[in-house]
Amino acid sequence: MRTLDVVGLGFTSLDYLGLVPHLPRLDEGAPLLDFARQGGGPVAQALVTLSRLGASVGFVGRVGDDEAGTAMRAGLVAEGVDIGRLQVEPGATSGQCIILVDHTSGKRSICAHPGSAGEIDPTGLDVPFLCSGRYLHLDGHHSDAALVAARAARVAGVSVCLDAGGPDPRLLELVPLTDVLITGERFAAAAAPNGDFREGAGRLRAMGPRIVVVTRGEHGSFTETADGVFATPAFRVPVVDTTGAGDVFHGAYLFGLLRGWELDAVAEFASAAAAIKCGTLGGRAGIPRRAAVSEFLRDHGRRPPPAMVVG
Amino acid sequence: MRTLDVVGLGFTSLDYLGLVPHLPRLDEGAPLLDFARQGGGPVAQALVTLSRLGASVGFVGRVGDDEAGTAMRAGLVAEGVDIGRLQVEPGATSGQCIILVDHTSGKRSICAHPGSAGEIDPTGLDVPFLCSGRYLHLDGHHSDAALVAARAARVAGVSVCLDAGGPDPRLLELVPLTDVLITGERFAAAAAPNGDFREGAGRLRAMGPRIVVVTRGEHGSFTETADGVFATPAFRVPVVDTTGAGDVFHGAYLFGLLRGWELDAVAEFASAAAAIKCGTLGGRAGIPRRAAVSEFLRDHGRRPPPAMVVG
Repeated sequence: MRTLDVVGLGFTSLDYLGLVPHLPRLDEGAPLLDFARQGGGPVAQALVTLSRLGASVGFVGRVGDDEAGTAMRAGLVAEGVDIGRLQVEPGATSGQCIILVDHTSGKRSICAHPGSAGEIDPTGLDVPFLCSGRYLHLDGHHSDAALVAARAARVAGVSVCLDAGGPDPRLLELVPLTDVLITGERFAAAAAPNGDFREGAGRLRAMGPRIVVVTRGEHGSFTETADGVFATPAFRVPVVDTTGAGDVFHGAYLFGLLRGWELDAVAEFASAAAAIKCGTLGGRAGIPRRAAVSEFLRDHGRRPPPAMVVG
Repeated sequence: MRTLDVVGLGFTSLDYLGLVPHLPRLDEGAPLLDFARQGGGPVAQALVTLSRLGASVGFVGRVGDDEAGTAMRAGLVAEGVDIGRLQVEPGATSGQCIILVDHTSGKRSICAHPGSAGEIDPTGLDVPFLCSGRYLHLDGHHSDAALVAARAARVAGVSVCLDAGGPDPRLLELVPLTDVLITGERFAAAAAPNGDFREGAGRLRAMGPRIVVVTRGEHGSFTETADGVFATPAFRVPVVDTTGAGDVFHGAYLFGLLRGWELDAVAEFASAAAAIKCGTLGGRAGIPRRAAVSEFLRDHGRRPPPAMVVG
């Protein structure tokens, strides 16, 4: 059964984003220059990116039956994400995040509330659905379920992609089950005794993944495979909000892999998609469609990957 | 036409409140210990307080026809507030606030977005409705409309109550039209050349109001009338969130005036209602009903005002 391009399992939240001239102090008021309410969560945003680019995706997560959960589900359906296996816990509250974005730098503070819907029970997983894509995308949340899903995917010949968002010890259990590991500088650096992310990328790859990508924000990305290493610069763009830029990178990266592009083209494509997102407040609103990424690449003197090659 | 106890005109917003262990810094995550989404705004909260205590109220404000505006209207209707004259601007966004509450102190940072619904047009006001209560309650927002409403109220013999929330020059135009001025220490202090709020309270009363109350948070309140001055201590209670405590004070104060209680009993009752509110996250959820305030006063060794005296 291969009905979808990518199936994801992970965290989803409803995000409330405020653009502020500076972070407020206690007993101080600050104007919100802009406000937005959007769906969020690492895997959910990556899947929306894939869907907007043209891939077919499904999502397994867990929300409450509150207004936030209803809004999240409606948002994912509107994006074409198959949420038939999304779990809705009666009487529970959904994950919600308050995100304040600094107008000067585009950097942000994320305050996350997990809600009360709890973890996905690994014994009740629809394993055939989780293994129905060419890739299984995980973010380390619902870690027991993620481990079961990753092991099943390996057996079924489905590639596993992991967004390793932080130095969580449970994430390291997933790394040996991962084909494509995309992570930030901190997680990679923590994998090396000397704290060097390049060294860490090599050590992480030695644990199993055939591709390790370290995303470094304005410093671009660093890719390590059996064929060697290369760096991809970031595009210089006006930044409104960096929220979700990494998630969009992951989604666009998977899209490039699905299309069978060379890895340097994949990294550049993902970098372009992430750069475009940074022009808009919120993790979701600014996610580009395929044509917008191609146009962006042309505007920056790059040749977009071919449209019709199917990987 | 005297169909309501109090009619209010002012700002209403939808508030997103997060309880944080400390205010976050840039590029830092923080857990939300609790999250709430509630209607807010100074006059709106005071009216909800009045309604919960047993008074009949109406509200004139302005929102967009977005999801936030719909949620706000539903919330006010559920509280028994007459919103028949609330203005809904098609295609506009409603006022929304992100409020981070420090878990240690209960103090908060309010980041407010006014939305795009704009100001209430003073030429289109339903003046008979605004003058249909025994009190007209204003917060200085929609200042042109507030001035028209206050002047009409004076002519109609309706008492005007003003929540002077900040040192806005337009607020000073309302003071001479005000019967009951309730304000914070900062506004009162700004009215005196020497910056002393007691001195400022006297100067503000000389501008017209028969009652001036300065609310001072944990330091209680200070009342100035033609009969003299007195201080009312605050109740010592565990504080979760001070958001809306002043608004609840205003609403409960008006309730006491409607009932014709002595001013020291009114101030103590308002102080008790505000103290109860501080035990709950958000400006609205913790607003007490009449019986809860009476019980609180008894628990603190005070005699609640008589239940059946109608002022």
